[in-house]
Amino acid sequence: MIIVGELINTSRKAMADAVNRRDEGEICAVAQRQADSGAAYIDVNCGTFLEEEEELLPWLVRIIQEQVDLPLCLDSPNPKALAKALEVHRGKALINSISGEEERFAQVLPLVRESGASVIALCMDDEGIGEDAASRLEAGKKLGERLLNAGIESERIFFDPLLRPVSTESEAGQVALETIARLKLAFPQSHIICGLSNISFGLPKRRLLNRTFLSMAVARGLDSAILDPTDPEIRLTLLAAEALLGKDEFCLNYLNNIREQEEN
Amino acid sequence: MIIVGELINTSRKAMADAVNRRDEGEICAVAQRQADSGAAYIDVNCGTFLEEEEELLPWLVRIIQEQVDLPLCLDSPNPKALAKALEVHRGKALINSISGEEERFAQVLPLVRESGASVIALCMDDEGIGEDAASRLEAGKKLGERLLNAGIESERIFFDPLLRPVSTESEAGQVALETIARLKLAFPQSHIICGLSNISFGLPKRRLLNRTFLSMAVARGLDSAILDPTDPEIRLTLLAAEALLGKDEFCLNYLNNIREQEEN
Repeated sequence: MIIVGELINTSRKAMADAVNRRDEGEICAVAQRQADSGAAYIDVNCGTFLEEEEELLPWLVRIIQEQVDLPLCLDSPNPKALAKALEVHRGKALINSISGEEERFAQVLPLVRESGASVIALCMDDEGIGEDAASRLEAGKKLGERLLNAGIESERIFFDPLLRPVSTESEAGQVALETIARLKLAFPQSHIICGLSNISFGLPKRRLLNRTFLSMAVARGLDSAILDPTDPEIRLTLLAAEALLGKDEFCLNYLNNIREQEEN
Repeated sequence: MIIVGELINTSRKAMADAVNRRDEGEICAVAQRQADSGAAYIDVNCGTFLEEEEELLPWLVRIIQEQVDLPLCLDSPNPKALAKALEVHRGKALINSISGEEERFAQVLPLVRESGASVIALCMDDEGIGEDAASRLEAGKKLGERLLNAGIESERIFFDPLLRPVSTESEAGQVALETIARLKLAFPQSHIICGLSNISFGLPKRRLLNRTFLSMAVARGLDSAILDPTDPEIRLTLLAAEALLGKDEFCLNYLNNIREQEEN
């Protein structure tokens, strides 16, 4: 499972305050906690700062990579901010995101090609987000083929089926699970990612819903997620899911982690 | 979700002791707790008593049905014990179980027909339990067709894909999930059930594994399970799963239950 730590996002008030104060200590501590919890990438999103984003995103990349030896998930709809962040990023970033929307595709593709980064490919286009799995899959397939034709290797593509809240769209979970299963068949060498917490927006006990959905999605082929890796229940769910799905030989990783936890 | 409460089983030491003492109060209290926790059937298994089973099973049926107004899941490989239990059972029982094994099929089928009970149909035959989903499905399909041909309505058949422990067979979870999905397609009017805790046998934190597998299985079509309904985490997982899968309109059941819980 490729975990993208979601906590450095200025839509969270504490993080907005920390960025406002340019509090490197606080920001780097959050990055470190996520790295220690098993994140493979640290997501960085300062989109709420609007005009300042082009200056803030590269600043965040610099200070975070001085703290943790991990690639970052550069999370912005602003191609200029992405370009400036890529200039200072060390290693291969994960660009969040490209889509089948013509303008976005044209602006983000060169960044992916030139940087060698991986990229999150949203299953949508200028028609918007499809209501059923067939239309999500179609948008995903078209986008995937365009990326492959542009020379982006399968392994660098992280398809995102796009989670919508079940509080407002009761079919949202089923549609996403079905899309995941069909994407997995269509692009077995690529990754499938989701922004997990979207599913539970507007409902109480969001962590319960998030981890329950995570186990369902992993069973259908999800192999990456943007989530809070410091949530101990999420980590247990992932350990359990990998043991249950035969992805953890002899359940050794499960056994070692449970033992370690019980000793602490 | 059709929940079968698993706690009245003499393979559990406390229950064996209670049955040994003929402690009606203790046994009925366990039945009541499961009924209060949402069980639709109470499983009754006193198989460890061997020769006494033919006398004990009907006794248990009588005392439990004096306490709770629910049908029971009569859980025995002994057709005589099942027959005696059915004589005293009120309402439509769930017989646990029939299979494609010729002797068992011949002995249990008349009990199902004459009593009007529902029946758990194990996806196995005299060849044993298939190693992959295709062979489980084949055994399940043959058995299902024989039951339908014998006049047992689809709705009375609860297919059991047979869970094996992932501790000893790492593919066991995947095989069961695939079998569930294919059974659901083949018999959309029937139920699919499993004895949930088998999956976690031999591993620590079994409840974590059980509930994680439950959410995966429900997403593939499982609509019934033999489990401990008094486990609060299992109940939360089921509430979350139904909300996430669009089986809980406007998430109302989820919201009401979470609210109630927070008030207590």
